[in-house]
Amino acid sequence: MTDQRVDRLREQMEWRGLDVVALVPGPNLFYLTGCSFHLSERPIVALFTVEGRAAIVLPALEAGQVGSASVEMETFPYRDEDGHDDAFRDACDALSVSGTVIGVEMLQMRGLELRVLEQNAPGSQTTAAEDVLFDLRVRKDASEIALMRRAVTVTEAALEVAVGQIRAGMTEREIAALLSIEMLRAGAEGLAFAPIVVAGPNAAMPHAVPSDRAVDPGDTILSIDILETL
Amino acid sequence: MTDQRVDRLREQMEWRGLDVVALVPGPNLFYLTGCSFHLSERPIVALFTVEGRAAIVLPALEAGQVGSASVEMETFPYRDEDGHDDAFRDACDALSVSGTVIGVEMLQMRGLELRVLEQNAPGSQTTAAEDVLFDLRVRKDASEIALMRRAVTVTEAALEVAVGQIRAGMTEREIAALLSIEMLRAGAEGLAFAPIVVAGPNAAMPHAVPSDRAVDPGDTILSIDILETL
Repeated sequence: MTDQRVDRLREQMEWRGLDVVALVPGPNLFYLTGCSFHLSERPIVALFTVEGRAAIVLPALEAGQVGSASVEMETFPYRDEDGHDDAFRDACDALSVSGTVIGVEMLQMRGLELRVLEQNAPGSQTTAAEDVLFDLRVRKDASEIALMRRAVTVTEAALEVAVGQIRAGMTEREIAALLSIEMLRAGAEGLAFAPIVVAGPNAAMPHAVPSDRAVDPGDTILSIDILETL
Repeated sequence: MTDQRVDRLREQMEWRGLDVVALVPGPNLFYLTGCSFHLSERPIVALFTVEGRAAIVLPALEAGQVGSASVEMETFPYRDEDGHDDAFRDACDALSVSGTVIGVEMLQMRGLELRVLEQNAPGSQTTAAEDVLFDLRVRKDASEIALMRRAVTVTEAALEVAVGQIRAGMTEREIAALLSIEMLRAGAEGLAFAPIVVAGPNAAMPHAVPSDRAVDPGDTILSIDILETL
């Protein structure tokens, strides 16, 4: 199934004029390869070419995790004592990335990875790949729809239990923690984002961060914004 | 106290030859301003000049939160319908950012914010500000040391309760959830990173992600890697 995803990525890339797509650890990389890595001070970048080649540059100490990937990727590991530049240059050379148009996740890729790409693929031009990835991922198959339904079920169950436990005098932060606890108890693998639980004056701020203000009787808890990760 | 932090930032900037430091939502921005924002598709960037001026560009719908900042910042809000470029250009013009050396958080700032800066501060050069921020933050005052001690107390208490509940047959993911729940119960405001709980073969992978593999009797749970955020 994941191989089909890479095939569909290539179709989208051709359509949108991208030679290469470069992804960092996160949902898109997981979607395409089944690999989960943490973002850290050691850059990890996977490269997919429109011709169908794939490579990943990563710390040698993480290289063992590529074995369980659902797609075949040439692996370019680097050791801390050598630095990461040689591995990136080798990967960019192997896949002829220099001088190409590279789609990157502008909302996910950091300066660290962007600069490393720019330096090791001279003459290339980076552009946002969000449209390509959106088009790819917006069409859900049966297994994805099943996962989304499960996430909604978990979220609704947790919300019901948590709301029943809210009492005047609890702080926004305590209610947010309560909700997180009930999400994990209901089977959530993780939270899509830090829960936004705000009341009273804070409720007028969109995207506010829960505070230590206690909820008064009669307060409206405007926003309980939470979702399990997929 | 936070004003002193900005003063110390300016000293470090002068020492290291940075004209401007540009920060995105996250721990460094919170450290300097007391402001917490979420990273989203709407760029938020705070600018600090070596001469002592400060500005923040952010969505109009978030602008209300700047009122509670611990430092004075000129605010450049933008509305979704106008896009963010004008606000960034106005802020860069007001603080004369063009042609300067801008320190950015290469491990935190995304392509989104980096490109917006490059486009609206022509002739500027971005460089990693991590060293400056590290030097600034590595010296802890009494209130920070107290917070670190509290975080360790919370973490140790949660770890003790959680470890006591681990049973053969639980999955790595379930144990990670257990640990997160106990952290929140013990008073954690959040987790510094997704807990790494791995056993058996997975324990040979540094930075592995907890899996659905059940822990067998006799398994070594190598890594329980967790810390409360400060």
